[in-house]
Amino acid sequence: MNIEMIRAAKTRLEGHVRRTPLLSSPFLNEIAGRRVWIKPECLQHTGSFKFRGGWSALSGMDPDVRTRGVIAFSSGNHAQGVALAAARHGVRAIIIMPSDAPQMKIDNTRALGAEVVLYDRATEDRNEICARLSAEHGLTLIRPFDEPLVIAGQGTCGLEIAEQAAGEGITRADVLVCCGGGGFASGVALALEADAPGLRVRPVEPEGFDDMARSLRSGVIERNSGLSGSLCDAILTPQPGDITFPILARLGGPGLVVSEDEAMHAVALAFSRLKLVAEPGGAVALAAALFHSDEIEGEDVIVTISGGNVDADVFGAALQRFGA
Amino acid sequence: MNIEMIRAAKTRLEGHVRRTPLLSSPFLNEIAGRRVWIKPECLQHTGSFKFRGGWSALSGMDPDVRTRGVIAFSSGNHAQGVALAAARHGVRAIIIMPSDAPQMKIDNTRALGAEVVLYDRATEDRNEICARLSAEHGLTLIRPFDEPLVIAGQGTCGLEIAEQAAGEGITRADVLVCCGGGGFASGVALALEADAPGLRVRPVEPEGFDDMARSLRSGVIERNSGLSGSLCDAILTPQPGDITFPILARLGGPGLVVSEDEAMHAVALAFSRLKLVAEPGGAVALAAALFHSDEIEGEDVIVTISGGNVDADVFGAALQRFGA
Repeated sequence: MNIEMIRAAKTRLEGHVRRTPLLSSPFLNEIAGRRVWIKPECLQHTGSFKFRGGWSALSGMDPDVRTRGVIAFSSGNHAQGVALAAARHGVRAIIIMPSDAPQMKIDNTRALGAEVVLYDRATEDRNEICARLSAEHGLTLIRPFDEPLVIAGQGTCGLEIAEQAAGEGITRADVLVCCGGGGFASGVALALEADAPGLRVRPVEPEGFDDMARSLRSGVIERNSGLSGSLCDAILTPQPGDITFPILARLGGPGLVVSEDEAMHAVALAFSRLKLVAEPGGAVALAAALFHSDEIEGEDVIVTISGGNVDADVFGAALQRFGA
Repeated sequence: MNIEMIRAAKTRLEGHVRRTPLLSSPFLNEIAGRRVWIKPECLQHTGSFKFRGGWSALSGMDPDVRTRGVIAFSSGNHAQGVALAAARHGVRAIIIMPSDAPQMKIDNTRALGAEVVLYDRATEDRNEICARLSAEHGLTLIRPFDEPLVIAGQGTCGLEIAEQAAGEGITRADVLVCCGGGGFASGVALALEADAPGLRVRPVEPEGFDDMARSLRSGVIERNSGLSGSLCDAILTPQPGDITFPILARLGGPGLVVSEDEAMHAVALAFSRLKLVAEPGGAVALAAALFHSDEIEGEDVIVTISGGNVDADVFGAALQRFGA
């Protein structure tokens, strides 16, 4: 896994993936006590950065392999990213999703042309279903994060951050990245190492699912005890990846951990101050910038909003509790 | 009023005003029956395109005049645009706002450093208050739309649309612009005439406040009978401007009129499909593209989302009625 793979992905993504802007708000600066710069990947195709990795994987595959189709498992954002990338490449996609995934994510994945197979997290084994379907249909598995082509795709967001930060005159800053298995954070970290060495990635997770923060502290891969029960569904993974963890151990700063309430508060502030729809899991980095400013260094902080696929009732609840 | 004034404004705005992206969603294309391209000015500084005009006016004034400060009247978006532009130029701003303006807009205008003077629409005369304060303090009035420097600023959005449409290979399309007094629509129309003559502006208004559509039909300036009572507060004006109307009469296509329900439905779809926060008045163009497609021509349609300054309860109501 290296920077050349990210640069190659950038070339493949050109014209297919959106270059998201870098936003800011004086109101958020005031809360954070420093300048806050927002990279809104909720505005990416399919509503999350995952389309970058999906496109990178599909476009980087051997065409003869690709033509037989792909398979993925995901609670929703990787699902949609792979579904749209597969549809635009004209190949079949089967996506295995937990039956308790947000309804919008299930509906969108189907609407984007994928065949969705639902499973029960409590009683069924996703890997078993995946292996069986993959063998039956000759499909190639696209892993959600521990997959070089996927990490390379997510890393293209880091290349954009490096360029946009330079344009704003930012040479030193923490870059807070919403973190599940670490595909996004590790891709961005590699990109910044090459193009903006003064910017340092720091993964952000919700309380109770802070496997990456704990792993970075202990130096070995640690697991989460639970795997559900958070509104931050997008970033709940059992443990850091074998590829992603060493990258973040080498390049990342300490992890940050926010409460679910802080994430929901950040959702409300993204609504009122940025005019953006963030999902709770996509708002943890913003929450860290706003409510954990004593754990952050420097005059500037850059945060990713990793996705915006949130059901209306959850969003409405965030506005009701923290809006206005 | 000519294209050179818009190009001059563009130079003054460089580095101060955000270049907003051009977005799309396969789900919206399906509803509209054609490709829908969205120019989200809700992502502009202060949450609406009005900052373009505000910055253009402040930066284009004689410095000796500017230094004495500015005054404006507005239900909220022009207010915030002028307030921030004045603050960044280091000069005083007094903004006269109706007491029934959305609370978020009043709060933001104050928080951006302006002195807000509230008046009662029913019993007080805004022009009288404005003339008195302006004379007392030597302030220069920045009109919300019938003002060449303001139109020039709004027109810079049209220059971006021309460039971005060309990048997508769009040479012919209706460009639907949310319309109050016509400052945005006329500025964009002049920009497109010069840089993308195959793109045609069509103003969009809410039912009951369709003064521009009626004026374009009759060929003379027509007034609205009411001036309040719509959630589309951002675009309620008594009549087209003396400068803006002739421009749209020459360059614009027929006006489009949408219901308040259609605007609220578009707010919900901007939430779910674009991850954008649109205010009802800022969503009328999207509503026209989605629900009045038989009144639109061509394979592509471009729509502006003119602003996103909406109170949480109104937004929540849109999601509750039309979400999911």
